[in-house]
Amino acid sequence: MFNLFSLKGGLNNVQGFYSDGVNVGMKTNSEDGDVAFIRSEVPCDITARFTSNKFQAAPIKHYQNYPKDFKTNFILMNAKNANAMTGSKGVEDIDAIFEELKKHHEVQNPIMSSTGVIGYRLNQEKITSAFSKFDYSAKNSDKTARSIMTTDSFKKELAFKIELDDGSSFNLAAICKGAGMINPAMATMLCFVTTDADIPKADMEELLSVATEGSFNRISVDGDTSTNDTIMLLANKLSGTYHKEAFKEALNKITFELAMMILKDGEGANKLVAFEVNGAKTDEEARTASIALSNSLLVKTALFGEDPNWGRIASTIGASGIECDDTTLTIHYDNLLIYSDEKRELDKEREDKAYVIMRNSSFKVTCNLGLGEGSYTSYGCDLSYDYVKINAEYRT
Amino acid sequence: MFNLFSLKGGLNNVQGFYSDGVNVGMKTNSEDGDVAFIRSEVPCDITARFTSNKFQAAPIKHYQNYPKDFKTNFILMNAKNANAMTGSKGVEDIDAIFEELKKHHEVQNPIMSSTGVIGYRLNQEKITSAFSKFDYSAKNSDKTARSIMTTDSFKKELAFKIELDDGSSFNLAAICKGAGMINPAMATMLCFVTTDADIPKADMEELLSVATEGSFNRISVDGDTSTNDTIMLLANKLSGTYHKEAFKEALNKITFELAMMILKDGEGANKLVAFEVNGAKTDEEARTASIALSNSLLVKTALFGEDPNWGRIASTIGASGIECDDTTLTIHYDNLLIYSDEKRELDKEREDKAYVIMRNSSFKVTCNLGLGEGSYTSYGCDLSYDYVKINAEYRT
Repeated sequence: MFNLFSLKGGLNNVQGFYSDGVNVGMKTNSEDGDVAFIRSEVPCDITARFTSNKFQAAPIKHYQNYPKDFKTNFILMNAKNANAMTGSKGVEDIDAIFEELKKHHEVQNPIMSSTGVIGYRLNQEKITSAFSKFDYSAKNSDKTARSIMTTDSFKKELAFKIELDDGSSFNLAAICKGAGMINPAMATMLCFVTTDADIPKADMEELLSVATEGSFNRISVDGDTSTNDTIMLLANKLSGTYHKEAFKEALNKITFELAMMILKDGEGANKLVAFEVNGAKTDEEARTASIALSNSLLVKTALFGEDPNWGRIASTIGASGIECDDTTLTIHYDNLLIYSDEKRELDKEREDKAYVIMRNSSFKVTCNLGLGEGSYTSYGCDLSYDYVKINAEYRT
Repeated sequence: MFNLFSLKGGLNNVQGFYSDGVNVGMKTNSEDGDVAFIRSEVPCDITARFTSNKFQAAPIKHYQNYPKDFKTNFILMNAKNANAMTGSKGVEDIDAIFEELKKHHEVQNPIMSSTGVIGYRLNQEKITSAFSKFDYSAKNSDKTARSIMTTDSFKKELAFKIELDDGSSFNLAAICKGAGMINPAMATMLCFVTTDADIPKADMEELLSVATEGSFNRISVDGDTSTNDTIMLLANKLSGTYHKEAFKEALNKITFELAMMILKDGEGANKLVAFEVNGAKTDEEARTASIALSNSLLVKTALFGEDPNWGRIASTIGASGIECDDTTLTIHYDNLLIYSDEKRELDKEREDKAYVIMRNSSFKVTCNLGLGEGSYTSYGCDLSYDYVKINAEYRT
């Protein structure tokens, strides 16, 4: 079979990829960069998935202007400005920035990715000032990951080595940002995955879809879906090695762990909660209920208050529109049965046990509807005063 | 035609209806009552609409056990306990309570309505202790309205007199509670409307549907739909007078104004905002976008922060799944154009004007999609620290 090893650092672990981040004065109160790049020494196959928001940001429109199956060797990223709702000018600005980039470095079909405030045009002067500051041969994953942070409180990078039975190996690495505007229809996040695996383009598309559905599409901080959400997989194939099952497992793992990092970094959030719904009539009904739970304000504030009352859980399932029956429903917090037809009222003993579980930084709520085989798990967090503070003050 | 006059007080204004509220010790830190009644000296026709939550509370199930077109002369209400998710025992408890009530007062098909915490059986002893305390011939609308308050910070009651051209008249009055768990699919609210109009049963059903759709179904505090939502219209017909258009206008007005009172009392809310979406492909698409706006956490926190950034408005519309185009979209705050294809970036002048509007306790956000004739307006409020505080601490 194969072995999967966790590596220190991030993008620096994949041969042929270089990255760096610099501060050009857009982030004023931070030592972190605000403009960054990832480049490959050879052109890469690329697969991307973008936000379901109808108002896709200019960088996404720019990407979509490339022909199908184009190759690229350069991704430019910036924070502080989403370049969203900027109209045709937003796309023209990207072209102008890349014209300038070409004076500093040879690029093929460069891609841009932006995060920040909506509704303002990019400051071309500041962004292009990065081009003489970049170290194009750096493998500075740390600075790159920090440069794309917005309300994130910590950087997000991961890397894995996949060793096959014949001794050959390939690596997979990723950086990611996101902490708010996170909804299970692609979180507001940017994620860049690089690999030297010799993966066919068709597998890239198939496996990125599977990985996204199992990770970023299952997390919710606040139920909002941004204009800029992006996940990209770049493959430069330099290892000459590939194994589909091994790659799939590694890609699923790296995206799931990054998604959990986003949730742990959810704006003002203190708790990570898995909402497993099973026993539903269909998987789709289980998904509806699970996502309603991870989005419910009343559930989120009860988690923050460490209130074991299962009533808000039950009420949210009932309000989600799916088929349900309070005589077949059971609710567990981790392994503690907190609701069933026989045990409805919370006695002191179970309430005390529930408190212990809810004080943990992560736990699982399992709702079994007792009606069928449908199941789905999504992941949410609590809602604290700090979420309100961060989002009331974000722009100013 | 007819004239509509606003009256002081509430239910006390309608002949033949009596009401009172007393405290039996369930609300421990309040002088307000926790058990109350509304009764009519003659049997009433009744029409009711209930929550869309699949887990309807026991009082709703109890109501639905009566035959179609039953008449009633008594509604019993309690706070602090929703009698929801209590199974068949919850309904049996209501029957037992009414057996006791019959020892104190003659009742016909009595109805119960409850609000409070989910998952606990009613305290029969406490509730039935109210029956010897009630003044059954009181017209104490104030105490009744206060008795059904939960997180409400003020009581909600209204009354109108409708005078027809021939000099005859009838009255309409209502009390209402609700401040959280408010969603546009029936807010978590209880509303009881009484009238002495000689209204046919068919009109009661038709006009209550119209009124509910135009009022309680358009407001959102937090997007959650409770297990207990109820609106009831009771007609004792004692005036012998009726006029359909006049009654319709009065009922629409009383329910709309009560809905706005709920929103103004939204947990921790300081601002009431109307979200008008027009120019959509269809009314249904306008409704989808309007309700997405009134439910969005990012929009709500931006309102709280008085941040004029229209980006979150646009992003929420884009994420709502409806057809939209950023070149035909316009956004106004009251009469101020804040976004159009031509005017995307917010300049200082418009930003300053927007601040002035957003500091008001109520204003309107109008989004014209420029694509068709569909329109819909819903009503929301901001999300403050206090919402989190109230809901993290509600049960304890």
